[in-house]
This record gives sequence, structure tokens and C-alpha cells, in this order.
Amino acid sequence: MASKSEKPWAGRFRQATNPEVEKFTASIHFDCRLYRHDIEGSIAHARMLRRQGLLSKEEMEAIVKGLQKIRAEIEAGTFEFRLEDEDIHMAIEKALIAKIGKVGAKLHTGRSRNDQIALDMRLYLREEIEKTRDLLLAFRSTLKHLAQREMDTIIPGYTHLQKAQPVLLAHFFLAYDAMFARDEERLREAYQRVNVMPLGAGALAGSGLPLDREYVAKLLNFPRVSENSMDTVADRDFVVEFIFVASLIMMHLSRLSEDLIIWSTSEFDYLRIEDSFATGSSLMPQKKNPDVAELVRGKTGRVYGHLMAILTVLKGLPMTYNRDLQEDKEALFDVVDTLKASLSIVSTLLKHVDFNRERMEEEANKGFITATDLVEYLVIKGVPFRDAHEIVGKVVAYCLEKEKTFSDLTLREFKKFHPSFGPDVREILSARESVRRKKTIGGTSPERVKEQLRK
Amino acid sequence: MASKSEKPWAGRFRQATNPEVEKFTASIHFDCRLYRHDIEGSIAHARMLRRQGLLSKEEMEAIVKGLQKIRAEIEAGTFEFRLEDEDIHMAIEKALIAKIGKVGAKLHTGRSRNDQIALDMRLYLREEIEKTRDLLLAFRSTLKHLAQREMDTIIPGYTHLQKAQPVLLAHFFLAYDAMFARDEERLREAYQRVNVMPLGAGALAGSGLPLDREYVAKLLNFPRVSENSMDTVADRDFVVEFIFVASLIMMHLSRLSEDLIIWSTSEFDYLRIEDSFATGSSLMPQKKNPDVAELVRGKTGRVYGHLMAILTVLKGLPMTYNRDLQEDKEALFDVVDTLKASLSIVSTLLKHVDFNRERMEEEANKGFITATDLVEYLVIKGVPFRDAHEIVGKVVAYCLEKEKTFSDLTLREFKKFHPSFGPDVREILSARESVRRKKTIGGTSPERVKEQLRK
Amino acid sequence: MASKSEKPWAGRFRQATNPEVEKFTASIHFDCRLYRHDIEGSIAHARMLRRQGLLSKEEMEAIVKGLQKIRAEIEAGTFEFRLEDEDIHMAIEKALIAKIGKVGAKLHTGRSRNDQIALDMRLYLREEIEKTRDLLLAFRSTLKHLAQREMDTIIPGYTHLQKAQPVLLAHFFLAYDAMFARDEERLREAYQRVNVMPLGAGALAGSGLPLDREYVAKLLNFPRVSENSMDTVADRDFVVEFIFVASLIMMHLSRLSEDLIIWSTSEFDYLRIEDSFATGSSLMPQKKNPDVAELVRGKTGRVYGHLMAILTVLKGLPMTYNRDLQEDKEALFDVVDTLKASLSIVSTLLKHVDFNRERMEEEANKGFITATDLVEYLVIKGVPFRDAHEIVGKVVAYCLEKEKTFSDLTLREFKKFHPSFGPDVREILSARESVRRKKTIGGTSPERVKEQLRK
Amino acid sequence: MASKSEKPWAGRFRQATNPEVEKFTASIHFDCRLYRHDIEGSIAHARMLRRQGLLSKEEMEAIVKGLQKIRAEIEAGTFEFRLEDEDIHMAIEKALIAKIGKVGAKLHTGRSRNDQIALDMRLYLREEIEKTRDLLLAFRSTLKHLAQREMDTIIPGYTHLQKAQPVLLAHFFLAYDAMFARDEERLREAYQRVNVMPLGAGALAGSGLPLDREYVAKLLNFPRVSENSMDTVADRDFVVEFIFVASLIMMHLSRLSEDLIIWSTSEFDYLRIEDSFATGSSLMPQKKNPDVAELVRGKTGRVYGHLMAILTVLKGLPMTYNRDLQEDKEALFDVVDTLKASLSIVSTLLKHVDFNRERMEEEANKGFITATDLVEYLVIKGVPFRDAHEIVGKVVAYCLEKEKTFSDLTLREFKKFHPSFGPDVREILSARESVRRKKTIGGTSPERVKEQLRK
Repeated sequence: MASKSEKPWAGRFRQATNPEVEKFTASIHFDCRLYRHDIEGSIAHARMLRRQGLLSKEEMEAIVKGLQKIRAEIEAGTFEFRLEDEDIHMAIEKALIAKIGKVGAKLHTGRSRNDQIALDMRLYLREEIEKTRDLLLAFRSTLKHLAQREMDTIIPGYTHLQKAQPVLLAHFFLAYDAMFARDEERLREAYQRVNVMPLGAGALAGSGLPLDREYVAKLLNFPRVSENSMDTVADRDFVVEFIFVASLIMMHLSRLSEDLIIWSTSEFDYLRIEDSFATGSSLMPQKKNPDVAELVRGKTGRVYGHLMAILTVLKGLPMTYNRDLQEDKEALFDVVDTLKASLSIVSTLLKHVDFNRERMEEEANKGFITATDLVEYLVIKGVPFRDAHEIVGKVVAYCLEKEKTFSDLTLREFKKFHPSFGPDVREILSARESVRRKKTIGGTSPERVKEQLRK
Repeated sequence: MASKSEKPWAGRFRQATNPEVEKFTASIHFDCRLYRHDIEGSIAHARMLRRQGLLSKEEMEAIVKGLQKIRAEIEAGTFEFRLEDEDIHMAIEKALIAKIGKVGAKLHTGRSRNDQIALDMRLYLREEIEKTRDLLLAFRSTLKHLAQREMDTIIPGYTHLQKAQPVLLAHFFLAYDAMFARDEERLREAYQRVNVMPLGAGALAGSGLPLDREYVAKLLNFPRVSENSMDTVADRDFVVEFIFVASLIMMHLSRLSEDLIIWSTSEFDYLRIEDSFATGSSLMPQKKNPDVAELVRGKTGRVYGHLMAILTVLKGLPMTYNRDLQEDKEALFDVVDTLKASLSIVSTLLKHVDFNRERMEEEANKGFITATDLVEYLVIKGVPFRDAHEIVGKVVAYCLEKEKTFSDLTLREFKKFHPSFGPDVREILSARESVRRKKTIGGTSPERVKEQLRK
Repeated sequence: MASKSEKPWAGRFRQATNPEVEKFTASIHFDCRLYRHDIEGSIAHARMLRRQGLLSKEEMEAIVKGLQKIRAEIEAGTFEFRLEDEDIHMAIEKALIAKIGKVGAKLHTGRSRNDQIALDMRLYLREEIEKTRDLLLAFRSTLKHLAQREMDTIIPGYTHLQKAQPVLLAHFFLAYDAMFARDEERLREAYQRVNVMPLGAGALAGSGLPLDREYVAKLLNFPRVSENSMDTVADRDFVVEFIFVASLIMMHLSRLSEDLIIWSTSEFDYLRIEDSFATGSSLMPQKKNPDVAELVRGKTGRVYGHLMAILTVLKGLPMTYNRDLQEDKEALFDVVDTLKASLSIVSTLLKHVDFNRERMEEEANKGFITATDLVEYLVIKGVPFRDAHEIVGKVVAYCLEKEKTFSDLTLREFKKFHPSFGPDVREILSARESVRRKKTIGGTSPERVKEQLRK
Repeated sequence: MASKSEKPWAGRFRQATNPEVEKFTASIHFDCRLYRHDIEGSIAHARMLRRQGLLSKEEMEAIVKGLQKIRAEIEAGTFEFRLEDEDIHMAIEKALIAKIGKVGAKLHTGRSRNDQIALDMRLYLREEIEKTRDLLLAFRSTLKHLAQREMDTIIPGYTHLQKAQPVLLAHFFLAYDAMFARDEERLREAYQRVNVMPLGAGALAGSGLPLDREYVAKLLNFPRVSENSMDTVADRDFVVEFIFVASLIMMHLSRLSEDLIIWSTSEFDYLRIEDSFATGSSLMPQKKNPDVAELVRGKTGRVYGHLMAILTVLKGLPMTYNRDLQEDKEALFDVVDTLKASLSIVSTLLKHVDFNRERMEEEANKGFITATDLVEYLVIKGVPFRDAHEIVGKVVAYCLEKEKTFSDLTLREFKKFHPSFGPDVREILSARESVRRKKTIGGTSPERVKEQLRK
């Protein structure tokens, strides 16, 4: 029965916790990651208790010092986490009591693990969103730097993975930048909803003790406190929302990865990844594989999976806190790690890629890729669009049959399809000219792309 | 060969589309829902073409009138949608040419289906988000109205579905209101990202014709135009984001549904659903089932499923438009329908529920539910929190053994557990008193709940 | 009160169903698809009731005739489904009573909609699995036919989308056949679990009437009856399992689609899709897009989404039947339709693809693709594998630097890397020779591929 | 450059792997779990190489001994895993070469990591499925034991969480047993598809060396070898399928958990979890929470998440092996751990639950739960079913209005509703009698439940 009395909630219990239960329900092996936030929150809580007269000055100081010592021990690796301590909160409280005696037993005054974990998670995620945003900004800088560098590089633009129209490589990078700009916006908005102080909600009803929630918020630099105590302990929206934003970022990275993988095939040969960013085969000596891009693409599944996991956990849960919610943490931690590592490595990878500019421009001049320019040429000469489209379609069919390109055609041949074709038709047949002419806002002409870059 | 020439893109094709392919790739049977937005977009496009000199005044007017006529026919049910028309864009363009002749062939000038569908979807979703927000606001009004009405109703608050502490029923409704308030915020933010004008991005590169995108934006009441043409046609973030917000709303509804279902069991007996809002059994004559709440809970899966579907579709897609994107529409439409119907019916359902106030308060006085108040009582008398917790735990264990409640205990019995217990201990043993004392911000005391309601 | 009494379960209800509730809970607009199975089940049920003396011969015959007439009307399109009828069961029962009078009111004897819908779903799915298997077999025939045809075609095999080793195109097709063979096996096993007769489970407890479940099973050609009545009405495993098998099939199709899409790029140029199986662009006249393959890839998301939907619905549902289960049907129907259409069209598509055999073999001779054969050459001459790998790696690096291929190297150059290289090294440098040598079971040598084909 | 040459595939590479890449791509920190299977496979491979003359007897023996020594070191905790070793295969190969010299460099002869990891995964999963099946069987034993014990316990059966008909508690346990019986079947079938020997597929094409795959299969106790080398290295179906079966098992456990959670509320009060299997609250001393059941329910989300993750990873992957596949392992490992722990703990939990039999039977006699028996009573007396249903519905409505139960009604009152009611109507009004009469196969009468148990 000795071990039983160790559980700080065991007053009413007649039996010690079964060891298999102890193991199954413990979270200490993963929520120990929150030690810093837990201690930070506890210190603020203790200061507030002091201010409200629930602790004496000496008690508060003993608690704060004790907690700081524990933090130092954890950081020094000398603190022992034990399964029986259930979670980070109990582990620290117990260590505190062991260290400073009876007074430690006052720390949990007016607090429940339900609001405490909400605080820890919010402190943690607030910090991690800041780090993620920094990585996202750094990544966007890389994209913009590349856009600037490749302002003169023509590539074939694709739809359906078929050559469509020529575009600037700069334009391609800025397309990705536009996606990540939206992600940054979403991250900023999600942050606002994380940045709310939950402590003081108690188990679910608030507290009968005279707690000052706004003072805790001030100490911990939260702009506001949560408004409904039941919602406060039942809520994991902020976790789901972050994982969703992470899913979108990974999705965007998966698309970029797919482009890089396809472009690095020997058949496309649009880019070469530097040796230090590729890996080889244990069997085939010639192989150089774009592993980083493949893994990032694969890790998209991992983050999607965590999104589905947390959504499933929350579905149909009755009010308020239920133990199911403990399942939020490992998912969140893995998303944070995966997202940060992926953003960082793709950003670095892009700096270690050599683009085969000649090959890209050469390919951008193949495949009747300026057919749309021919249509526009006719439209400007007054041919209704749909007719112009059909005429050029027939020119393409003719070329395919004769194994010719547009440039191989004589003016006479052109004129057979429509009398409006004149000698100036030649001027519009190059990829570079095609790009130059796309002057609508957001279009791929150099001036428009520069405009985007400036924004 | 006759039928082949019908496809407006078939100039270069030597064979007519295979009928199985036609059927498999067609979207007209579901994207016909976008007819109004497609026509609205086309009218704005035609006006812009006129302004830029790409259409004469007469041509523009003929087109606009033709489109209006088509809209009227669709609304009158006299327009025939045919599978061979592929999609709503081609169906309308063809009908236009049939109606007004050659000049109709000019409408698609400077436009691709890639940017056109992006416009249609954004117009559609903008409208639907507005409707959804109205429903959400109406629902929140219902919750607030109920909170106001139930300001005096005491219920047991639950954690782990075990009685935890008494709370006001008003507090419970406001907890849900807090969730839906966040959802409304998210919806508003998602709206900003939907509300961007894509037309003019062309197939992916912008246009070589002198289009005025900002004029189109103005006509269609968009505050801004998209910034990168490749991103514009590759992007479905706005669809995914809306489906995600819908998933969160459904998740919140599923939790409320679960509460309602459990509360309507004969064992809880906290509420009765009016006969008009329940359904019976084909076999068991006594049954009255909370079908609406169950279905809403079930439909959460449906919306989650669509979220996973669209995320899967987008994973690893290369730039820019790929036909996979066509799979966004049916998912989005079903989410919009499901979400609106669910919000509407739960809001109405809540008005047709009778709460069993006596029973709830009675239950709120059972189960040692004021044990935490006893702890706080001791804490205020100077007993360290953790000790107070253990002491009260032992009181509970004692009561369980003796089959007594707190109120059955004599002061002498109380004092056996700790000398600090005094005669005033009786004052804190009722649920009503417990609620009254939870005065922390966001707590369940009547004054705090009224404060929430005012916000 | 008139409309209220229409609901066949309304005896105890004091109010008519609210019309919004009626609309929200109705399933008739989609479960009408089950009319044939519902009637088939009802006929068997009526025959059993007759046999057990619960119906007279005349009653039974009247019921059977009435049901057959309703079936005929539905098939002729003259039957009116109305929202107020809730679902297919009630719609048919009501029509039956309207048609044959009082005796129709005896049909539901000993039956609940809970076991009735389980029967309908199982009859439906049994049939659809059979059709799916036929389509899968037909598809596998196509693959095997192609394998037979392309037994002499050499292609580059890829890992990481980088050229790895040459293989036969036949081998590629048989790799897909191996995947679909496993799917067929899974489908067969899932079928066994669908093929169980649920009627007689009643609402959940079985029946107090003397029903003969085994006779019903015999009439409906089920090899066995379900063993536990509670499980019978709570169970949707058979739906989830089928959707899972469909998800795997779609995943395999998505991989094949990806291969086809990449191979049909102008950069790879390994295949051309016939004009009748491709579609064009509304703007770009030159475009010919692999839309079918893209849509199939996209529809994978749709089926995954339905899997996640039904799994979410079932998570945490208490025993036994809950109305949430109604959400199984639309998901299942859409999976059935999507899967059948996808299998059918990919099978047809493959017959309308022209492989560019010359180009493929040419590419299969590039990129040091026989490097592994060089390693094996050295291994056979006694060089330890890992050393041989490194040596050949260096040969590759040397060639890259000198811009040479293996065939360009003189024997002297080879010997600089290792003395074991002899004149016979030349014999192993071609893709065709490389393929010929892969004689391990399951390898790509023609004899092994033929062996696979025979199986 | 020194460190570069460490990578066993680095012959052609001019640069060392970037450390960030090394970290991002490494799998050694999780695939080290496969060490035993990797070594077991390598030993079999070495024996086969010896048999085929590719190793001498001495070489083979040196390798086998070296590998055994490494295994011993790993198990003793003296083996150092280093990030630069990438994965378990390379770590062991390097350690082997370090230990036994040059000859270790021959082990990888005829093998690629692509087929090697497939072998390791299959060996691992085969073993884990066996363990899972044992746990599942043990769990089913518990359920059957409980069914036997509770053969006389009457509970209310529920549909829509509303009282429906009385059933035996034994019947309830056997309903769950029926679900897990299907899971066991699925597990057995999945096992067959895991139990296939992949080694010898090489990187994708098979091998040019004279390997004997069937001998390896025999050594490792596989009944068959894989049939197509490309499929062999591209395939992760067996992983997905296992995770799916695990998802179904978790779903079933989540339903049971939900039942246990609801039954353990004080409002239902059908069961009490022993103190050793419940946990308390850090704040509320009276709390005793069903944490184990809640966590199991929550972990369902976790397993669903992994299913979605791996399905997403595989979607649209081109042939054959792609690095994305590395993402299969952590998901699989976590599923295996979660599933085994959940099965084990729920099985134990059920043994530590006290059912409140009196309360359950009492509740089983409330709520007009025998209304269906009244209907059947009338049906047997010749009243058409639908009419009987309506009559009894009216009896219920009458009782509700008069606040009576069926037993309170006089025969005269009964007769007002239908003349067929006779004095024998009293005999059928008890829950116990209702249960006794459910004699259809699979029904809840004691004889039928015993029949189920015998099967």
C-alpha cells in the first residue's frame, strides 16, 4: 500500500494503481518536453498566489527557487523522470515537495491539471509557431532570392505535366512564394488563437479562491485570458488548427518536391542536385537520388495523418475534459518537428541545385508551346477567339503530320490556314517573345515578375 | 467526324473523344451548380473586353443579353445540359454561340478554363461563406438566448463523463458559443483568402492581350486580384481551408450532439426532445430517438472525409493545373450543403428541447460534487492544497464506506479528518453555493456568466 | 394530426415530425438505389412468414405480387418517391399497403429496419463485389495481354524516378498485375464477410416470433446466418472493409496513372495516348492532356476520403444501432461507382496507348544503367561486392568527368580501375544483355517473365 | 573528404553528404528496432551465397559469427548506433567489416537495401501479427469467460442510446466477441500476404548472380517467394493492410470503451471500475475516472491517423521504390505498440470491473422496454403487425400521460386499446420473460446465447 499513497490524488482510493494501468496512462515520457513551459507557468502561478495572499512571500520564494533548481537539473540531465509520476506536472510537483518540503504542497492551489496542461501547450505552441514563422520567412527569402537570380531564365510552363506556355523560372519560384505567403498569414492568425491564457479555469468551473487571472496573463505575456472555463479545458482547437496549417505547408512542399524530382530525372534534366544533397544506392553504383525531396513528399502523409488523428480524437467527445485529449501531444510534437525540419531542409536544398538553363530554354521552344500566342495574334487581327483557336489547332495538326515546327512553316503555308497571317507572325514564335508579351497583372513578363518581387 | 468538331478544343485532334472518356471526364452534372457564377463572371469579362477594345459595344451587348437569356432558361428549367458539353463553361459558350452566332466565339478571348473555374469557385464560395456565417450567427444567438434563459439552472459539470463540479446550464451553452465564436473568426479569415480575383491568369502565364484585371475585379466586387498567374490556376488552398473550418464546426456540433444524446437517455433524463424533433422505430413502439443529434454527429465523418479527400488530391501534384483538381467540386458542394443543414437543424433542435431542471439540480447535489469546495475551504483556513486534497479524499472514502453524503456528516466526523473544519463547513456543501463562489474570470458564478453574455 | 399518423411508428407521438427534421433525416433520395434488394429481401421474408404460419398462403401471395408490381413501377419510372416516406423500406411498405390493403401491414412482422437495412446493404454489396471482381479480372487480362505483347520491349526501370536498371515492359505490366492479384484476393475475402444473412436479428435482440432465419438465407442464397443479433445491427465492418479494399485498388491505379502521366510528357516521350483518349485545352490549341489518368489519380483522394468518413462515423459509437450509421450509404455508393468507372476506363485506356519502343530502349541504354551488371561482373571474378561497388562508382565518376559512356571506355581505361576487367566486359554493357541475365525467380529476364505470365 | 568515403555508395560522389541531409534522411534511430530481423535475414542470405558458391565455407562462417556477435552486442547494449550509418543495414554491414575485415564486404552480394528492408519488415510484421493474434485470442477468452459468468444477467439493450429491448449481458459480450472474431480472420488473411519472401528482387530487376531465392525462403520459413521483382520493392500493401486491420480493431475497442464509459457514469451506474484501474484528479478529491477506456478510445484516432498517413504516402508514387516509402516504419511500429497495449489493457480492465447486476435488471424493466413483446403478442393473436405496432404505441402514449407503466394497467385498460388483449398479457411484461422468448438463431434467449458460446 506504500506506493499507493504516492499518487497525489489517491485519498479516496483503496487500491494502488495497477502497474499496467500506470504504464498505459503515463504521459511523462513525452510530455517531459514541456518541462520549461510547465515551470514557467508554475512560477507565474506562484507569484499570483503570493499577490493574492494565498502564499506568503517566503513560501513563494521557496517555490520559485525550488522550481528553478528543478529546471536546472532537468537541463543538466540529472533529473530522473519516473513512470509512476504520470506526467510532467506531477513529476515536478513531487520533486518540489521533496526539495522544499510542505510548502511545495501549496503550489497546486487553485489549479487543476486540466488548465495547467492547456497553459503548457499554449506556451509551447506559441514559441514553436514563432520558430516556424522564422523558418517560413527564411524559406520565402530563399525563393525570392532565386526569383531574382533567375529573372532571365525561360522554362516551359506545364499544365497536366504537358508543355503549356513558356514562363520565367522566377515566376515559378514566386508562385511557390505566393503559397507560402498565405501559409504565413494563416500561421499568424492561428497564433492569435493560441495566445490566450487558460490558467484559472480550474478543472472546468473556475475557482472559488480569489485568483487573479489577468496578472498571470501579464506575467506570461498573454494579451488576453480565456472567457469560458468549460471551453478552456475542453478545447484543443488551437492544436488542430496548427496541424492543419502545417498540413497545408507540407502539401505545398510536396508539390515543390514533385517538381524537383521530375526536373531532376535524366529525361527532363532541368536541374542537378549537388552531390552533398543527394544519396546513392547500396547496390547500383551509378545512382544519385533526390532523397530529400522524396522524403519531404512522404512526410506530407505523416502530417496529414496527425491531422486526421486529432480530428478523430475530438469527434463526439462530451463536455468537458476527457482523457482522450492526452493524445494531442505526441501528434503535435511530431508535426512541429517534421514541419521545421522540412522547411529548413528544402530551403537549403534549393541553394544546392544547379539549374540547366540552356536545356530549359531549349525545351521551352519545343512542342508548339507558343500556339496560344498565335491565337492571340489572330484575335488581335480580328478573328473571333474560338475560330482562331481552331485554326491554330489545325496548324498544329498539319505540323505534326509533316513533322514540322511553327518556325519551319513558310508564310504561304500559314496563309493557307487563314489570310490574316502576315510576315510579322515570325516575331511571336519564340518562347522569350511569348514571355515578354504576358503583361497582365500577375503575368510572367519580366516587368510583371519584377513587380511581384517588389511586393 | 461530325461529332468531333463539336469540341471547342479539337482543332489538332484526329479522333472524336471516346464516349466512355467523355462520360468519365465530364463535370457538367455537378458543376452546373455554378451556372450563375459562371455567367456573372462572363458578363464582367465581356464588359472588360469591350472597354479594352477587344469587343465592340454591339458585340458586348449581344453577348451579355445572350448570357442573361441562358441564365433565365436555366432557372426556368428549359436549358438542356448535355454530357458532351463537358462542363458548365463549354455548355454555356456553346449555347451562346448557338443563340447569338459568331460573336459568341469571341467571349473566351484572353481566358482559359483554368482561370475561369477559379473565378466561378471563388464567386460561389464567397456567397456560401456569407450564408454559412449568417447561420452560424443565428446559431450563436440561439445559444446566447438559451444561456440567458438558463441563468438560474444548475447542472452537474463533467470531466471524463464523471460528475466534477456544479456549473450553470448557461455556462455550458456559452462554452459552445465560445467554440463557434472561434469558428466564425476562422470563417472570416478564410473569406479574405477566397475574396481574390483570379481571371486574367489565363492557362498559367497571364495573357498577351491587353486585359484589365482590376476592372473585372471592380465589376465583381473583389478587393484585389491574384498576384501570380501560375499560383492562381494551381491553387485550391481556399477550398481546403473552407473544408477545414467546416470540419472544426462539425466537430463542435458532434460534441454538442453527444451531450444531447447522453442527456436524453432515460438514465440521465436531463432533457426531453419534443416529439416533432424525434423519430420512432419501425418495430419498437415505445422508442423516441434523438436522430437529429445522431445524424449530425455522423455527418462529422462525412466532412472529415472530404477534407482528407482534397488534401490527398493535392499532395504531390506538380505545377500548375492538373485535371485532378476537378475533384474539388463535389467535395466542396457536399460540405457546403452538409454544414448549412447541420447548423440550421441543431439551432432549431435546441429550441425544441425541454430541460429537466429539477432533475439536473438534484444530480448536481450528488456524488460528492462539492469536494473541491471543501478543499478550497481548508486551503483558505491555511491547510496546504495537496494536504487538503488528501484529507477531503479521505472524507469521500469514509462516506463511501459508510454510505453517507457530506451533508450526513456531523461536525465531529468532519473534525476527525482535520481540526480546521468548523460549523461554517455546512454553508459550502450545496451545488448552488459552489457555483456562486466560482468568481474567477470565465468562471461559472452567475455574475461571471452574465459578464460573458454581455461580451 | 392527419399527416402525423402517416409515420408507421407514430403511435406514441403527440406531434407530427417537423418538416426540417423530415428533410434532414430522410434517406429516401439515396437509399432508393436499394429498391431491388429491399424487395428481394421482403419477398423472401414473406415466404418464410408463410412457411412459419405467420401469413396465410393468400396473404403471402398478395404481398409478393404487390411487391413485384412496385418493383415494376419503380423500374418503369412511374413510382413516386416522397421525402415523407423517410427511406426505401417505409416507401415500399406504404405503397404495398396502398396497393393490397390491410394485409400489407403484416409484411414487417418480426422485422426491424435495423436488420432489414443490413440485409439490403449486404445483398447490394454482394452483387457489386461480383461486378467489381469481373472488372478487376478484365483489367488483369488487359495487363497480361500487354505483357505478352511487350515481351521484347526494353525500358529503363526506375527507383527514385532515376534510371536504375533496364527491365522488360512486360515485367512492368506484370508488377501491376501482381498488385491487382492481391486486391482480388482481398475482395474475395471481404466477400465472405459480406455474404452473411442478417435478417431475424430484429431491432437488436432477435425475435419472439418463430422465424426461420436459415430458410430466408437459403432463399437468398446466403451460406450462413449472422450469429449475434446485437452485433448484426451494430456492424458496418463489411462496408468499411470493402471501402478499404477499394482504397488499395485506387492507390494502385494512382501509381499506374502517375507512370502513364510521366511517360506521356514530351520529355520522356515513352508513350502517346490516342486522340480519342485525351482531351484538349480551351485556350491552348496545341495541348493534348492525359486527363483520364489524372482524374483516376485524383479520385484516389475521393475514395480515401470515404474510408476516413466511415471510420470516423464508427469511432466511439455505443452499442448497438445508432442513426449515425445512415451515413454509410452515400459513401459506399460513391465508392462503388468510382471504383468500377476507374477500373473500366484505365483498362480501356491502356489499349489506346502507343508505346514508343525505340525511344524506351534508347533511354534504357543511357545513364550508366548497367553499372550494377559491371559490379556483378567483378563479383563473379572474385572482387568483394562492396569493393566492386566502389570501383564501378569510380568508373562512373570518371565517365561523368570525361563525358563518356561505359561503351566509350577502352579496356585499358577499365583496367586502370581494376585488373579483373577483361575483354568480355563489353558483352555486358547493353540493356538487352542486362535484362537477359536477371534470371532469379521473379527477375526480369524473358524466361522468368514468361514464367510469371504462365502463372 | 575522409568522412565521405565512409558512405558505402559514395564511389561516384564528389562531395560528402551534408550533415543536415544526413540527419534528415537517417532512419537508424527508429529502424534499429529491426536489428534482429536484419541479422536473421543476412545470415540466411550468407548461407545461400555459400551454397551457390558465391562465398566459401570459411567466409560464410566468419560472416555468420560476426553477425551473431553484433546481435549479442546490440542486445547487451554495447553496440553504438551512429547517425552517419543511415540505417540498420549499413550500420550492421559496417560493423561487420570492422569486425571481420574484407570478407564482410561480400555480404551485400546480390542484394539491395530495397529488397533487404522488405525482408526485414516482413519478418518483423510476421512476428508481431503472431503476438497480436495471441492477445486477440486472450481478449476473446476474457469476453467469453464474462459471457459465461453473466449468462443470467439482464441488461437493457440500447439503440440510439435509448432503451430498446432487454438482453443478456452475456449476449452483449458475445456481440463484441463476434467483432473480434472477424478481426482475427482478417489478421490471419493479412498474415498470408505478409508471409512472402522478397529477397532476391534486388534493387528492382532481380539479379544477374545465381541466387537461390527458394533456399532463403526455406531457411526463413516462408512458404513462398515473391513473384515479380519490381512489385516486390515497390509494395507496401502488407503494411497498409495490417494498419487497416488494426484500425478496425481499435474501432471495435473504441465502441466497447464508449459503452464502459457511459455505464460507469453515476447516472447509469451499471458498473464500477476497481480503484486499481481508475485514476483520480489533481484538484477534485472525489473523482474516479475511467481513464483507460478513454485513452483507448482516443488512441483509435492515432491508429486511423497512421492509416491515412501511409495511404497518402503511397498515393501517386511512380514505380518502383521511392524514398517516401521510408515513412512506413514509424507509423507501423507505433500501430503495433498501440494495438498490443490496447488489447492487453482492455482485456485486463474487463476483469477489474464490477457489474451492478441489480441496477441493470431494474433498469431493464423500465421505459416500456417490452413494448415490442406486446406487439408480438398481438401479432400472434392475428393483429396485422403494423396495426399492432400502432396500438401498442398508443398504449405507451396513454401510460406516459397517466404516468403509469405497463404493469400498472388493468386488463380493462388494455382491452380499451384492442379486444385481443387477454389476461395472459401479464406474463410477457417482464424483461426476463422478454429475453427468454427471443429464440431466433442469434437471439438473446439463454439457449441461443449458450449456443453462440459453444461455437
